[in-house]
Order: sequence, then structure tokens, then C-alpha cells
Amino acid sequence: MTMINAFSGTAGDRLDADDEALLDRRVRALGPAYRLFYDRPVHPVRGEGVWLYQADGTRLLDAYNNVVPVGHCHPAVVEAIATQAATLNTHTRYLGDRVVDYAERMLTTLGGDIAHVMFTCTGSEANDLALRIARAATGGRGVIVTANAYHGVTALLAGMSPSLGDSVGLHRFVRAVAPPDLAAADPAAGFAARVAEAADVLAAAGFGPATLLVDTVLSSDGVLGTTRVLAPAVAAIRERGGVVIADEVQAGLGRVGPDFWGFRWQGFEPDLVTCGKPMGNGHPVAMVAGRSALFAAFGTVRYFNTFGGNAVSAAAGLAVLDIIERDGLAASAERVGADLVEALAAVGDPRVLEVRGVGLAIAVRLANGDLAHQLVNAMRERGVLISATGRDGAVLKIRPPLVFGAEHSDILVAAFAASLRDIDGQHAG
Amino acid sequence: MTMINAFSGTAGDRLDADDEALLDRRVRALGPAYRLFYDRPVHPVRGEGVWLYQADGTRLLDAYNNVVPVGHCHPAVVEAIATQAATLNTHTRYLGDRVVDYAERMLTTLGGDIAHVMFTCTGSEANDLALRIARAATGGRGVIVTANAYHGVTALLAGMSPSLGDSVGLHRFVRAVAPPDLAAADPAAGFAARVAEAADVLAAAGFGPATLLVDTVLSSDGVLGTTRVLAPAVAAIRERGGVVIADEVQAGLGRVGPDFWGFRWQGFEPDLVTCGKPMGNGHPVAMVAGRSALFAAFGTVRYFNTFGGNAVSAAAGLAVLDIIERDGLAASAERVGADLVEALAAVGDPRVLEVRGVGLAIAVRLANGDLAHQLVNAMRERGVLISATGRDGAVLKIRPPLVFGAEHSDILVAAFAASLRDIDGQHAG
Repeated sequence: MTMINAFSGTAGDRLDADDEALLDRRVRALGPAYRLFYDRPVHPVRGEGVWLYQADGTRLLDAYNNVVPVGHCHPAVVEAIATQAATLNTHTRYLGDRVVDYAERMLTTLGGDIAHVMFTCTGSEANDLALRIARAATGGRGVIVTANAYHGVTALLAGMSPSLGDSVGLHRFVRAVAPPDLAAADPAAGFAARVAEAADVLAAAGFGPATLLVDTVLSSDGVLGTTRVLAPAVAAIRERGGVVIADEVQAGLGRVGPDFWGFRWQGFEPDLVTCGKPMGNGHPVAMVAGRSALFAAFGTVRYFNTFGGNAVSAAAGLAVLDIIERDGLAASAERVGADLVEALAAVGDPRVLEVRGVGLAIAVRLANGDLAHQLVNAMRERGVLISATGRDGAVLKIRPPLVFGAEHSDILVAAFAASLRDIDGQHAG
Repeated sequence: MTMINAFSGTAGDRLDADDEALLDRRVRALGPAYRLFYDRPVHPVRGEGVWLYQADGTRLLDAYNNVVPVGHCHPAVVEAIATQAATLNTHTRYLGDRVVDYAERMLTTLGGDIAHVMFTCTGSEANDLALRIARAATGGRGVIVTANAYHGVTALLAGMSPSLGDSVGLHRFVRAVAPPDLAAADPAAGFAARVAEAADVLAAAGFGPATLLVDTVLSSDGVLGTTRVLAPAVAAIRERGGVVIADEVQAGLGRVGPDFWGFRWQGFEPDLVTCGKPMGNGHPVAMVAGRSALFAAFGTVRYFNTFGGNAVSAAAGLAVLDIIERDGLAASAERVGADLVEALAAVGDPRVLEVRGVGLAIAVRLANGDLAHQLVNAMRERGVLISATGRDGAVLKIRPPLVFGAEHSDILVAAFAASLRDIDGQHAG
């Protein structure tokens, strides 16, 4: 499968000479496995809030990077990192206040039965560790994911991330099931039935009980978690002795609104929760949290991650939580997101089949993947960064920093409408 | 296997009330999988150069943390991180100068046939990715490691890190072979024979050709790579169609002296090289580098690591390389390390069976693991941080920041001699 929204490498003539030279050096130094976004790649040199600035002075509205929930280069996060890095940066095999403060703060947001949190550096490490913990707790190796899931790039996770394409095969203990069909009468029940069946198949093959590993907004499947569709599947796994890992890399930390976590919005209690991208506003911070019973079996295994939960990572993470809470960004995400969904729908183009969202996780379903590709690139030319997702690439993925406001939505919607007209004009021309 | 130098959890009465309260909160929040070092855990609140300062004003000489090659909180690294974090921190799907500059600089140090470098956040991610690349290139799943190897904590790597103990089983495609026996007439030939045999066994089981994954100073096996012992094993793997991954998390970036990388000091050319810990002086930066032929097969797989090679990580990594080169730290490591080996040997205690080293990777082999445990803790009480390693825990691991100087060696040697006397006195008393 070709990567959605990848630079093809053949459009280099659209770059200026400096960028073309940089691209050459990049390919030589980094090798063939790296990809750039957009037909004409972006080259930011400065970031501020929801804006990325390029060398030529043009600025791009960032409606894509959930990695920076409080905005690019937020001064309070920069200050927290700089101050802590100048004071102390050691690991969790020494006593330290920062990591404990951060863990306690994070647990407060998670609530319920979630008792412990362990820190890693990336979402991949978090999901990989969560699966090790789940396996130790249940004794089962089976894993159920959705048909176009993405959960990370370790050897374990790549083999359960079908969105990476056919060049990465799934492990034999993994079953990928069709995601909720939002057009069905009861999408949640249908999904639960498929998860139950997969769990039974895995158990029969000796891989049970199975773990359900699921992105709570189902982002790579086309941002399908804009409806509450997961709780019955969670119940089905539990009935079979399995556990549920809520992958909150996309949904977590206020993106879905005041529920703060996708699992809470979806209406279920997870056994394990993972998060990464948004936690450090770009600093490599990630985590696995969960119920204490899950961690008990893993205690004898022990875990150490040199950089995970170090003092600077904890300081960055604390600053991000502070800002999200102080500035009411979860409530803002809910409000701004709802208005944005309405405004996008009001554009009223027949090629736009559906606009839906939860908070600032927004999906625009288009007639086909070609149109989505053209639209993503037309919007990029008009200075607005989004991308596309879903198995057919026909769903626009709008996932801005949480500091995205109404004034930014106006710019995005104008670019969306104008880009649809551009494409129309090209077809007519 | 009990972790070497782990706090037992039963010595809490040696902590003051504040630390005891913090320890309580830590166990509650982080759960049972975390471990602290030392019978009386260390609680640093500030770091500077080779020193860690505790809340009570006492300072500890850090002869353990290779994570900070240029010293704790080096102002130039802090400045590089702070400035870049305030300017731009985006990922590799946009064009960026920093990551390309850093990759080119790193490749210059690696030399030979090493053509590309890919960035991750941790050494675990780097080794995990290196194995995926090796597997794509050779088609073989088999992996050979040493008997007490440690290569990381992803699910893939934990199953080839026997030093984690029996609670983590090895994968069926992994063979752990006895490390070089330095007391043998030809340790390198003996090790090569064992690697060759393991490769043949793996090939016969359908897992060939095998990859040799090896720490070039064999740190967790007892810092056995203080002698050149690896080149014949590398040749044996090559003859069988396999590839070699040099894990340079311990040896790399100047620790072994002006050869700069353990593989060069050992006298072989690796297919892939991984590094992590020292690259960002505490900032989560890691990499896989290698020959272009290895990466070719992986190009279709594609790779993205959200934080890997981001602008701040690259800035931190560049600053570390700048300082190591400008301050001649590799040459210093060679000089200071050689003098330190000599001074430790000159203590002349009969319980010290051997002192050896390469650069600032230094091993002190003691009569047994109990003595090593006592000595590590006695030195900690005298304000010097080291640890122990090896299958029996009887080898002191001395692995200071590269800015460790002669004046620090004097302090370490004095604490070493005094601690040996302390233990003697306890036994006599």
C-alpha cells in the first residue's frame, strides 16, 4: 500500500533550488525508508502556536499536528524543559520528585481503577510494553486490532499495524477485524460481534485469551470513533478473559473534550491505557497506565527505560498538563471542534459525503481517495496543513493543536471551500 | 535472577523521612516493575559535570552514567535544546536542516561503508529497528547474542536479553552463546567457534542466516570487550550469509578512545550500528546506521518515528558531537582510562582479581558477587557511584562521563581503597 499523502519523489521540480539540494542530502544521509508529506514538501523553520513559518516568510496553519497540543514552541513548555535540563536530568533508578509528581497528576486525569503509570519515550514503546504487561497478566498472546490500525513501529507492533501496508505482514497471533460500520443500524454491536468471533478464533488457535488493542477514535481507520462504538466490544473481550488496551495517542489529553480521554468518552474502563505524541508537546514522553492487577504479574519482570520518565521528560509533561488545565483546552476543543464540523458541513459540496468529529478529532469523508489527495495538497498550497486517512484514503484527517480557535477554523474552512473550487476548476479546465 | 545492585525495598529505614515518603508515593504511582539502585537509594536534585548533588548538600561523584558523556547539564547542550525548542520542533515528514546536518556529522564519525542513519528515541527502538532491517535484508530470523547480553526492552529485544533474568524467556529463534573467555589462550577464536556453531544450529532450524547482535565492549557480560575479541566471530557470521549489528550504546561516541566506536577498536566493519544512551547527553536520541545494501530492502517498508530525529533531538545530538570533538574527549577517555586502570590495580588487594579497560569502559573483577555488592554500596556511602555487572555480578562496572579527569580518578581510587578496607574491617569485627 502506498502511504497516504506521501511525497512521490518525482515532484522535485516544484521545490526551489535550496530545498532540492536539502532533499538530495536527506535521501543520501537518511536512506530510502523515510517519507515526506505533500506533493510539494513543507520546510518549516519556525513554529508558534498553530503556525509553522517557512524560510520564505510564508506561514502555514497547522491543523494536523496533535504532537503539539498547547501549540508549537509554547514558552512555558520550553521554559520547563530548559530549566530542568540545566538543573538535573537523571533516570528512575535514583529517587526523583518530578517523575512521581507527574505520575500522580496523570493518574488523577485517568481516574477510575487506573492505579499505576510507567513511562517510556514513544507511543511505540508504550504499546509494546502494554502488550508485554497484558501477556504477563493473562497468559494469552492473541491480539485483535482493526483492519487499518496503526499502533507503532517496533517489530511486535508493526506486525499488528495493517495500515503500514502489505510489505509488513501480520503476526500469526493477530487478527485484524473490520472497524465499526457507521452506516449500519448498530455499529457498536456489529463491531463487538466481529471482535468476539476473532477472540474465539484466537483462543481456538491456542493464542487466547486475546487482547483488544484499539485507538479510541479509530483514527487510521478513518476517524470512526466520532461515535460511541467501542463499549460492547470491550465487554465481549472481558467475557472471554481478555483485556483491553486503550491506545490514546490520538484521542488522549483533552482532544475529545472534557472527558479528557477517548475511553471515557466512549464509555468504557480500559485495563491498560497508552499515550505518547501529545504528552510532551514534542518532547519524547509516553506512558502505559493501568489497573494494579495488570501490573502485578509484570513486577517480577522489572522494567527500565533510560530516558523514560527522566526529570526533563516529567517536567515537560507536567507543563503540558498545567497549560491544558489552566487554559481550559479540553472544553475549547469540544466547542471549537463542534463549530468546525458545522462550518465544514455548511460548505455543502456534493463531493463531501459526511463531516463528523469529536472535539478536535475531525473527519471529512469524500467521494474517493483521489479527491482527498488533491484536496489535501490544494489546501497545503493555500497554507493549511491537514492529511487524509482510512483504508481508501478518502477521509480528511483534521487534528489541530488544542489551541486552535474559531479564527483558525475560519481560515481552514475558507481554504477548504476554495480548494474544492480549485479542483472543480481543474476538472472543468 | 535478582537485578544486580537493586535496592531491596527492605532497607527503607536507612532513608530519611522525606525520602521514605517519596519512596512510598513512587511505589504507589509507578507500580511494582521499577527498581532503584543501591542499598540506600540516591536522591539527586542537581547535576553538574561529573557531580550529582543531593538535597542535603552532599555530592556524589558519578562514575556510572555514560548517558551524559559531556557531563551533567552541560550548558552548551542545554542551550542547544532550549534554543531549538523555542524555535521549531517538528518531525521528519517535513524538510528540515537539523536532522540532515546531524546525520551527515554522525556518518562522518562512522566512516567506512556506513552510508545511512535512521533516528529513533531510545537504544531499544534502535536495536528493534536494526533487527527488522537485518531480517528484511537477509530473510533470516535467527539472532545470536551473548549469555548475559542486554539489548533492550521491547518485546522482541527482551526475548534476546538474558541479563533480564529467567522471568523473560528467550525467543525460539535466539541462541545465547558463552561470551569470550579472557582466560583462554585465544578468546576470540573460541568465541567465533561458538557463534559459528549457533549460526549453524539456527540455520538448521530454519531461522538462518543468523544475525549477530553484540555489544562491542560486552558490558553486561562483565565488560569483556576490553580485549579485541570480536572480529573472528564477525567473519564467521559473514561466511554464513548473516549480518552483524554492533550495539554501541555502551562503547560508542568516544568512550573507547580515538577509535570513537567499539567496532573500529575491535577491528571489524559492522553491517549495522546502533547507539542510544550517550547521543543526546540525556535527551532521548538514538539511531541505527548501516551499509546501504542493508537499507535497500527496508525502503519499501518505510519508517516513521514521531520524535525520532526531530529538530530538538538533532540539535542536542549535534551539540554533543561538537563538545566531544572540540574538547578532545575521546583522547581524554583513553588517557584517563589507562591511568585509572593502573591506579586501581596498584591498590593491590588480593580480593581484586583483575583490572582492565578500554578507554573509560573499565572492569574490576572481584573474588565474588557478594564482595562486589558490598563494595558498590560502600563506595556509594563514600560518595562515588559505580555499579556491578557480569553473570555472577562480580565485576565492577566503571563507566563515567567522558569529562572524568585525573582529579576525579584520584577520588574514585581513594574511595575504592577505603571501601575495601571498610569491608575488611567489618569482616574482622
